[in-house]
Amino acid sequence: MILLSVSSSSSSSIAAVFSGALILFNFFEATLGAPCPINGLPIVRNVSELPQDNYGRPGLSHMTIAGSVLHGMKEVEIWMQTFAPGSETPIHRHSCEEVFVVLKGSGTLYVAETHGNFPGKPIEFPIFANSTLHIPINDAHQVKNTGHEDLQVLVIISRPPIKVFTYDDWFMPHTAARLKFPYFWDEQCVQESQKDEL
Amino acid sequence: MILLSVSSSSSSSIAAVFSGALILFNFFEATLGAPCPINGLPIVRNVSELPQDNYGRPGLSHMTIAGSVLHGMKEVEIWMQTFAPGSETPIHRHSCEEVFVVLKGSGTLYVAETHGNFPGKPIEFPIFANSTLHIPINDAHQVKNTGHEDLQVLVIISRPPIKVFTYDDWFMPHTAARLKFPYFWDEQCVQESQKDEL
Repeated sequence: MILLSVSSSSSSSIAAVFSGALILFNFFEATLGAPCPINGLPIVRNVSELPQDNYGRPGLSHMTIAGSVLHGMKEVEIWMQTFAPGSETPIHRHSCEEVFVVLKGSGTLYVAETHGNFPGKPIEFPIFANSTLHIPINDAHQVKNTGHEDLQVLVIISRPPIKVFTYDDWFMPHTAARLKFPYFWDEQCVQESQKDEL
Repeated sequence: MILLSVSSSSSSSIAAVFSGALILFNFFEATLGAPCPINGLPIVRNVSELPQDNYGRPGLSHMTIAGSVLHGMKEVEIWMQTFAPGSETPIHRHSCEEVFVVLKGSGTLYVAETHGNFPGKPIEFPIFANSTLHIPINDAHQVKNTGHEDLQVLVIISRPPIKVFTYDDWFMPHTAARLKFPYFWDEQCVQESQKDEL
């Protein structure tokens, strides 16, 4: 940024200065916590230094460890999410594969087998530290921290960026479920061109 | 198994008994640690109860948390691997996406940018607990526990089952790299039909 204030007497020098500033700007964007650093992503990163946010959901901390719109992943995406006691995901479904690995805490996974016009009463599964869960494709589900300490999970999805259909309750018709795309953590960085991939 | 010892005077009864035994056998296969339980995979499993093996590599413990040939995953596969001090992966490359999340310990990631006829001298990256690594597609790489305690990582790959090309050293020509498919932990369960997907 300092370069931008350097005076120059020729237009070519000005162009060079602007070009240098642009390179520097891109460098900082790519390496120092820019929101959408697709280019120049370091091969090794410290997870504890990655940006996290609750994206308007009280009790949630979401971190995209390796993302599609954020980091240029094409086939898999990995999140770390922490749920405070009592907090939960929406009831939702998606057509990609999803696997959880529970790192800390405990809670409940609710899964409704989607055979009718609406999800229906879900089956409840206790989840716990060092458990792994796989979500059947297109089944409506919800993860809730029903324990007394933070629930921390790694989440792996295929075919990013994620396209989520959300439900108000388990008896809402599938046809009324709302598509949320791009999802909250992808909104800032999603490319217009990717909207055609739905 | 007890059912198999029940005597019966009619062939239809024998058929029923065998059928019942088969159902019981399939149930136990699917839920109680069978090697290839694609059908009936429980939605929640305890990672500490999953089978692990070193597959002939001293110092390695490999566990397939969610696998293609093992569990029927189509798009992603997740492993937990623990490397004793001094142990390492082979030098290898693959054309799928791969992300590591380091859970415990420390070590070194070696990556060679594959621009010539052989990998060449790799770049070294220190890796540490709570770091994440993404491997550029088709770049030869190796993970080694260069620390003093166990190195434990979660590994996420796309397009399972994995097809690996291994190298004896960093200067071995790419054309001499050996394809290992199915990989060691997939050998027991790989379907003949999947060999055509290479």
